[in-house]
Amino acid sequence: MKLSIASAALAAALLTTLPATAQFQRPEQAIKYRQSVMVLQGTHLGRMFAMANGRVPFDAKVALENAVLLDVIDQLPFAAFGEGTDKGGNTRAKPEIWTERAKFDAMAAKLQEETAKLVVAARTGQLDPFKAAVGAVGQSCNACHDAYQRPAN
Amino acid sequence: MKLSIASAALAAALLTTLPATAQFQRPEQAIKYRQSVMVLQGTHLGRMFAMANGRVPFDAKVALENAVLLDVIDQLPFAAFGEGTDKGGNTRAKPEIWTERAKFDAMAAKLQEETAKLVVAARTGQLDPFKAAVGAVGQSCNACHDAYQRPAN
Repeated sequence: MKLSIASAALAAALLTTLPATAQFQRPEQAIKYRQSVMVLQGTHLGRMFAMANGRVPFDAKVALENAVLLDVIDQLPFAAFGEGTDKGGNTRAKPEIWTERAKFDAMAAKLQEETAKLVVAARTGQLDPFKAAVGAVGQSCNACHDAYQRPAN
Repeated sequence: MKLSIASAALAAALLTTLPATAQFQRPEQAIKYRQSVMVLQGTHLGRMFAMANGRVPFDAKVALENAVLLDVIDQLPFAAFGEGTDKGGNTRAKPEIWTERAKFDAMAAKLQEETAKLVVAARTGQLDPFKAAVGAVGQSCNACHDAYQRPAN
């Protein structure tokens, strides 16, 4: 791992400006970017669900690792839902994202809040709080998808 | 930003085990994951190149933000090149990755090393060292793609 503790700590302060600086030249790029971020979110949340559900043995270190990583990744997708990115690629985003922006933004904030709680839960090293927190993150994902994502074809 | 300084600092120690725990159930999932990570790498490196090349004005904070983020993202793709993931999806990975594994792994380590240097360069807040470091990261990407990625159709 090349990331020093100092630079990782620095990330906490730095990433505050990410939404403002995450610009895309074309809508297709924003759509591909946010879809890619969601592949990562799904992968790392899926690993945590596998442990929460008992499909794979609970490993406190793996749980914490995935939680911390998800906490960073969850900062990334929402800046890629800028104006004009409702069309232009193979997107399942509903137009209501851009007409109900405050509600969408609140759901994004809720996800980030639940993921921050997941990190705290994972740091206990205990399965029960981890299970509860993973479930809350998953519910937050689903609530936003139910509201703002068209079903897959 | 929900990521606390404490949990971000913790990430430095935690992510050391990520390659060992990054398992995929099917080759298609590994291929999609690593391709998604590369979209993120390309996006954030692209933003840094735009500043390095003068296409957009240099902003030291944005430079550092993207460098720190790339330093985390660069830890992720290589665990998704496991045995058996040479086929199964729409991959451009050459079979030599799995027959010249030590060489491939050395290129991965080189990328991570150059990205760690990029973070150091970005922390100076100066354009010149940043430009040099961004160029070195880009060369590291290209060297591996030239060796191990088939051309796009």
